[in-house]
Amino acid sequence: MSTEQQQTLDAILRQSAFPVGSSVDEQRRRLRELTSAQPLPADVIAKSATLGGVPVCEITVDGVEPRHAVLYFHGGVYVLGDALSAAGLASQVGRRTDARVFSVDYRLAPEHPYPAAVDDALATYEALLKDGIAPSDILFAGESAGGGLAVATLVNARDHGLPLPTAAYLMSPYADLTLAGASIDTKRGADPLLSRELLEPRVTDYTAGQDAALGLISPVFADLSGLPPLLIQVGSHEVLLDDAVRLAQQAAAADVEVTLEVTPGVPHVFQAYGPLLDEGTVALDRAGRFLAARLSGADA
Amino acid sequence: MSTEQQQTLDAILRQSAFPVGSSVDEQRRRLRELTSAQPLPADVIAKSATLGGVPVCEITVDGVEPRHAVLYFHGGVYVLGDALSAAGLASQVGRRTDARVFSVDYRLAPEHPYPAAVDDALATYEALLKDGIAPSDILFAGESAGGGLAVATLVNARDHGLPLPTAAYLMSPYADLTLAGASIDTKRGADPLLSRELLEPRVTDYTAGQDAALGLISPVFADLSGLPPLLIQVGSHEVLLDDAVRLAQQAAAADVEVTLEVTPGVPHVFQAYGPLLDEGTVALDRAGRFLAARLSGADA
Repeated sequence: MSTEQQQTLDAILRQSAFPVGSSVDEQRRRLRELTSAQPLPADVIAKSATLGGVPVCEITVDGVEPRHAVLYFHGGVYVLGDALSAAGLASQVGRRTDARVFSVDYRLAPEHPYPAAVDDALATYEALLKDGIAPSDILFAGESAGGGLAVATLVNARDHGLPLPTAAYLMSPYADLTLAGASIDTKRGADPLLSRELLEPRVTDYTAGQDAALGLISPVFADLSGLPPLLIQVGSHEVLLDDAVRLAQQAAAADVEVTLEVTPGVPHVFQAYGPLLDEGTVALDRAGRFLAARLSGADA
Repeated sequence: MSTEQQQTLDAILRQSAFPVGSSVDEQRRRLRELTSAQPLPADVIAKSATLGGVPVCEITVDGVEPRHAVLYFHGGVYVLGDALSAAGLASQVGRRTDARVFSVDYRLAPEHPYPAAVDDALATYEALLKDGIAPSDILFAGESAGGGLAVATLVNARDHGLPLPTAAYLMSPYADLTLAGASIDTKRGADPLLSRELLEPRVTDYTAGQDAALGLISPVFADLSGLPPLLIQVGSHEVLLDDAVRLAQQAAAADVEVTLEVTPGVPHVFQAYGPLLDEGTVALDRAGRFLAARLSGADA
């Protein structure tokens, strides 16, 4: 782990952070520029498909026999991002779990506020089950808002009486849209990307007048009982640090198996910067071992 | 993991729980009876010694080449327990880290209230360093009050300008003697052993009129910056669940590497029941990998 790597990444991110007050269009354009600058690894194949009527990006890694399925939810505060832009990080999960990855293009706000994303996510999971894939062969994974959406979808699936996937992997989950975590303020200086000011207008886009404290919007407030094992990873340089901590606390309160891993000195969704940051690769490797051990066919 | 094992253990523990209102002498006698019923594994050698003038139980495992040292702090709410009674569990840590274990007989309240335990703990660590053992070869470990004491000793050693050990392993740490965690009440029915009523008189024994919120008494309130990697394990059937969660939160806030592992359905210091409970052995194995990877000589 190199302090120099951390400082370099921090400087890069501070340069590319969205200006406070910038519009949705402007933020979408900047994010596309940023993510299109990172080409997919050469052995990753991404193709468009649909799952339960929802567009997805189906991701396979050359040489990996896909015996399992990962349902992957990208980040972008429910307003930005898309399935293909997340394919690089999503493929790192599939690579470590012998899985085909379905990165979901759930509908975005403000055009499609809550519950559009939640409905789309559930539809893709139902489609996987209808395709005959065993829940014990399915993982959920997500980054940022996608981490929150993954948990919301577990809660939603449970409440619909569906069998649940075998585990979920949440990278820097955005899980409290009331922005009530203390780290929103205490980590403000340390976080190179996000802030209350930047998040607030996007919360309004997604909630569109609904209560931000609803469990399917902010799963830190949901009853999490019955959920499968959760692995939550977060950096200590994040205003969303306490989303991760309180999600772990809420899961533990409900007797859910949960592991929270805090990596110091790294930013939001630091796993995305694997080539620049050793901590990213190390965290993905740990996640791979956690998830693989819980898939069907794993040794007890 | 077997629900039947969990239920059997729960029933056993409920039978042996201390009656509320029982005296220190009575609680000490019962704990001795309970722990003396569990013989040490046949390959464990425990002998009396002193370290920095403090009595310790020096524990080695036959066939394990002790290349490292574990400083181990037993539990017992700073009033009960002793170094030898903890030797079985302590040996499980040494066994997995190729370490000699020094289980510390720190002075107990009410005869010796705070800061006696904290002073003794620091003295043993200073002695290890004076003996020429490299900090990179030293681990701290502790259960319950011993987990809190391990963290307090890290803070204390840092504040004394000492180099810090390479990592610490905290099993169900008792880290908030103000008893302010929500789980003190929400997990009351689920916890077969501990309760606010049982803890309160023992808090008074230890604090003896001092502020229970002092960082060296309740490290959930301490500044934890500069601490080495922490592994915190806790069961979900514990009134002290939130001590573990808030300790992780406090560490993360201070940019400390921390992993929190919550095992559902198991009680306080569930690792002590390894032979009865698969989760205990599994958690010790995970801890062994976490700790071994951070000791000198480990692969990067």
